[in-house]
Amino acid sequence: MGLGDPHGGLGPAASGPRPRRHRHGRPADGLGRGPRHRLGRHRRGPCRRGPQGPQGRRPGRRAHLPAPRHPHRPGHHAADGQPYRRRPPAGPSRAHRPAPPLVAHRTDAVTVPRPALAATQASACGKVILLGEHAVVHGVPALAAGLADALTVRARPLADPNAPIRLRIPAWDVDVRLAPDEGGRLHPVAEAAAAVLATCDAPLFGLEIVGETALPAGAGLGSSAALCVALARLALGPDRPVEEIVEASMAGERIFHGAPSGIDSEVAARGGVVRFVRGSSPTPVRLGRPLALAVLPTGVPRKTADLVARFGTLVREEPGVATPLLQAIRACVDRGEAALRDGDLASLGRTFDACHGILAAFGVSHPRLDALCAAARSAGALGAKLTGAGGGGCAIAVVGGSAEHLREALAQEGCPAFLTEIRSS
Amino acid sequence: MGLGDPHGGLGPAASGPRPRRHRHGRPADGLGRGPRHRLGRHRRGPCRRGPQGPQGRRPGRRAHLPAPRHPHRPGHHAADGQPYRRRPPAGPSRAHRPAPPLVAHRTDAVTVPRPALAATQASACGKVILLGEHAVVHGVPALAAGLADALTVRARPLADPNAPIRLRIPAWDVDVRLAPDEGGRLHPVAEAAAAVLATCDAPLFGLEIVGETALPAGAGLGSSAALCVALARLALGPDRPVEEIVEASMAGERIFHGAPSGIDSEVAARGGVVRFVRGSSPTPVRLGRPLALAVLPTGVPRKTADLVARFGTLVREEPGVATPLLQAIRACVDRGEAALRDGDLASLGRTFDACHGILAAFGVSHPRLDALCAAARSAGALGAKLTGAGGGGCAIAVVGGSAEHLREALAQEGCPAFLTEIRSS
Repeated sequence: MGLGDPHGGLGPAASGPRPRRHRHGRPADGLGRGPRHRLGRHRRGPCRRGPQGPQGRRPGRRAHLPAPRHPHRPGHHAADGQPYRRRPPAGPSRAHRPAPPLVAHRTDAVTVPRPALAATQASACGKVILLGEHAVVHGVPALAAGLADALTVRARPLADPNAPIRLRIPAWDVDVRLAPDEGGRLHPVAEAAAAVLATCDAPLFGLEIVGETALPAGAGLGSSAALCVALARLALGPDRPVEEIVEASMAGERIFHGAPSGIDSEVAARGGVVRFVRGSSPTPVRLGRPLALAVLPTGVPRKTADLVARFGTLVREEPGVATPLLQAIRACVDRGEAALRDGDLASLGRTFDACHGILAAFGVSHPRLDALCAAARSAGALGAKLTGAGGGGCAIAVVGGSAEHLREALAQEGCPAFLTEIRSS
Repeated sequence: MGLGDPHGGLGPAASGPRPRRHRHGRPADGLGRGPRHRLGRHRRGPCRRGPQGPQGRRPGRRAHLPAPRHPHRPGHHAADGQPYRRRPPAGPSRAHRPAPPLVAHRTDAVTVPRPALAATQASACGKVILLGEHAVVHGVPALAAGLADALTVRARPLADPNAPIRLRIPAWDVDVRLAPDEGGRLHPVAEAAAAVLATCDAPLFGLEIVGETALPAGAGLGSSAALCVALARLALGPDRPVEEIVEASMAGERIFHGAPSGIDSEVAARGGVVRFVRGSSPTPVRLGRPLALAVLPTGVPRKTADLVARFGTLVREEPGVATPLLQAIRACVDRGEAALRDGDLASLGRTFDACHGILAAFGVSHPRLDALCAAARSAGALGAKLTGAGGGGCAIAVVGGSAEHLREALAQEGCPAFLTEIRSS
């Protein structure tokens, strides 16, 4: 469900103390190693990641990072219902693809080759869960949609080719260097970005990468997956298979979320609408017509794990009530999918309204979400619901008539919304 | 579900133009007839009601009254799931009980006997639906509770024994005479009160009846049934069988609601908690311990009929979604009843929360109801939900710890609540 806790991901804390160059002029950590180290690593062959701990992460650095959102336990599942994976999802082996292009670079008075980015600009989608959030953990299917071109990253060279990459995303208050600070700490966003670039054998020095986005961070809209996919696409180029992009992005998603299901990356890379069921590969849903959607951020932070637990409370303590409610969510998902295929927005809106109430019955709504949904309906939306974990984050509404009219009506009610159009991938 | 539309019942419109004596010094309508007429009617035998229209009401006067909330149609049911009845519910035949006591009264220079009230003071309960509202129309059981001594009426003689009864309930802005105005119009509250008193062969002249209540009118708390039951008890006395009180009160309830199910009158007369199923007699529920309840009025008017129709929309258009939701409400009712019997307030609170969300899924909540429920939970209530028709009206909350603390916490949030304790009848 994306970034449950903004303070561990791309939320306000991302603007915290900026990492600086190490006091000896070279980063102390392997992630931020200089061109020679980088080159040496590249020579070991593509996609090697060096010594790793039991979670596929470097040992001895855990104390500097936020705890993973969903520590791996056998039989335990992430909030979006996919089983935790210790490795990226299967895809074409990167060991068999050609090495990335090299550029000449002079360092320590010795000219050595080092990798370059395959593109100077790349984009990725945000994500909304249309129907089935939370229930998907309990075996119900869910529908997720990509928010097209939600994030665009652009790279340009820094004056100092030995300076660690600077990553700036002004809309998220992110301005970090991909290098540890004097205390050896690496910002989680920097670590995630470095992990993606390292997986792609891309450079970690001499560049500034700037992200432009209208996507709010930490609002359950897949902002972390959008960043990781955009960086992977920047490093690997626009023509690489989407499976490879997703696989590379997962290196960063694991930094943010510990053991994500991968659905956010899938949607960020592919766009469109997918249906997914716990433990199965997502399948695309073809739309009868484009779906105009209004996204209404509450600005209320929340913790996904708390909300997953709250949803589970009713399942555990009142199964006689929860079981038919899960059945009703399944019916909403099935009806919603049929409505998307048929282009029947009125029916989709009814399933949105019903699903929001059911999620409220499970205790994962929030007064601000209820108010936004009511305002959207009053302003002419065909239906509205929370999306993702709930408890804050965002609501989404099916636009019936003029999207701009709806946006203005909501703005007059003090509910700023952004509009998007979902199309088949 | 009580007074769905306050403008037709005991709401703001009840303070409208006060009926006056007829210009010829005597009311023109049979309802407001003078002592001689009254006496003559009494001589025809107890409980005779003269010529009646097809709805059990006098013909030719319909144009002066608000349309019944639920016009009778075969197979059609009231909002609380009971089939419409053209006649009062079965009870001991009033033809076999002794005639009411008579008092001597001089009019037109001839002394004739006329009936008196059997008591000078009487009380009745308000009503909340605890669980199962709306769904009861679709065959699901529901639980209703009496709000003890919600209304007390007191009678005292007027200086003019020929003046029509004056009925005052300051809390509801009601101040009416039980006589038509110069245009022949009779206020619905006056008509309902007169119908109850006439059914009880009680006087219609020479008295002032004053009601004291903390119950809001037109908020789905059974205010009309409380008035009708209190008047019947005033007329018949405190020792009469409750079935007889209920039967007499129904004469007034039919004025307010057209074809009510009678459940409001049952609860107003009996108090306690009852379980009721469409088409069956209500059965009392014994409580494991008293239930402290906070009642939170929204102050938002609504129309019960509109909300009944809205609930039915999902049932009709999305049966795959609505059927398991109705099943979930049934589970809430069963679990709630068990919780009441066991005194398990935490479990009752969970069913309240779940049921509110499910009712929201059917579209019968309101942003103010959602906000009040959220505020009550934040203030420490164990659960909260809308009660009755929804769309406004009131919310109810299960008090966990100190009721006064909860009330104060809600007051600080701008949510005034009144507290009540539900006990077995």
